Amino acid sequence: MATYSPLTEKLIQALRVLPGVGLKSAQRMALHLLERDREGALRLADQLRSTLSGVSHCQQCRLLCEADICHICSDELRNQRQICVVETPANLSAIESTGIYEGVYFVLMGHLSPIDGIGPEEIGLHLLFEQIEQRQVEELILATSPTVEGEATAHYIRQKLDAKGIKITRLAHGIPMGAELDQVDGHTLHHALQSRKVV
Amino acid sequence: MATYSPLTEKLIQALRVLPGVGLKSAQRMALHLLERDREGALRLADQLRSTLSGVSHCQQCRLLCEADICHICSDELRNQRQICVVETPANLSAIESTGIYEGVYFVLMGHLSPIDGIGPEEIGLHLLFEQIEQRQVEELILATSPTVEGEATAHYIRQKLDAKGIKITRLAHGIPMGAELDQVDGHTLHHALQSRKVV
Repeated sequence: MATYSPLTEKLIQALRVLPGVGLKSAQRMALHLLERDREGALRLADQLRSTLSGVSHCQQCRLLCEADICHICSDELRNQRQICVVETPANLSAIESTGIYEGVYFVLMGHLSPIDGIGPEEIGLHLLFEQIEQRQVEELILATSPTVEGEATAHYIRQKLDAKGIKITRLAHGIPMGAELDQVDGHTLHHALQSRKVV
Repeated sequence: MATYSPLTEKLIQALRVLPGVGLKSAQRMALHLLERDREGALRLADQLRSTLSGVSHCQQCRLLCEADICHICSDELRNQRQICVVETPANLSAIESTGIYEGVYFVLMGHLSPIDGIGPEEIGLHLLFEQIEQRQVEELILATSPTVEGEATAHYIRQKLDAKGIKITRLAHGIPMGAELDQVDGHTLHHALQSRKVV
């Protein structure tokens, strides 16, 4: 039974390339665009084309950018021998906002997830290892997320670089500033206790 | 602080025309398309263009379709003097699937919602009233949803047609088939009791 016309149906299917958008959401989106925002839909179509043709990866850190080398990697004041490995641009942004990091980054754009077909190649680790060889990197900060996948990714990188004699560090785990002790989860408290410091 | 390149940022903004997509979702969608599914994104851009240029409203019932008059309105076996008013194509589809309705439809593509700027014109009521004059309609079935907005829309239409002498009906409210009495909400039970029938 045809409720939607063939072209509408095709748009619904096309919208499902978006992550987290199932059939019902795609139907709602298609109807919204057709009924209420045709102008916005055309802008979206144009922007998809121009962004896709204009944006590629920074050849050094894999951040999405329009130039060959992004604004961070090409900044001469940055220490090229210190690389901070992050999963996403959003995580990079979080570290940048602390204002204390002066090295460069390597953006994995994800984490190892063999079940989804995402192996070392897909997150660009061969590029990272090449750069470590070429640039005499002194410190590699593994700032992947403290999730199962993030930890596994960090573990994999550490293992691969075991014999290279580079300083490999990980962000400290512990009690968040301003948190009440009894509000902190047991796993975090466990870490905080194990990593206690003499003051 | 620029985390996303200007073109990526523009795509993120463009994706926010989609209903229910805020900044975080739009960022996730843009990164997903750029990182993992450029082909799908280009297909989406093309499909947006071709669907938008090909699809308009059935000039009779407002269903989205490629022709001037949709397949239901142009069906000669259908009773053109019986119009069922529904809010969405999905609701039309639900009624079609019962297989017992042989009239035509009028699709509001929404409901009255003055707070969102959706008045009688936006849901095409002027077209409905014109057709009622022209086609000697005998029965108008108000099949809007039993929500506040749906009820208000039905009430508005009923009021406007008060003096026209058309039979105006509403879908029966009551206990859903197969439901346990104690699982039915009070409002529905209230309706069911009021509309009880001699058997």
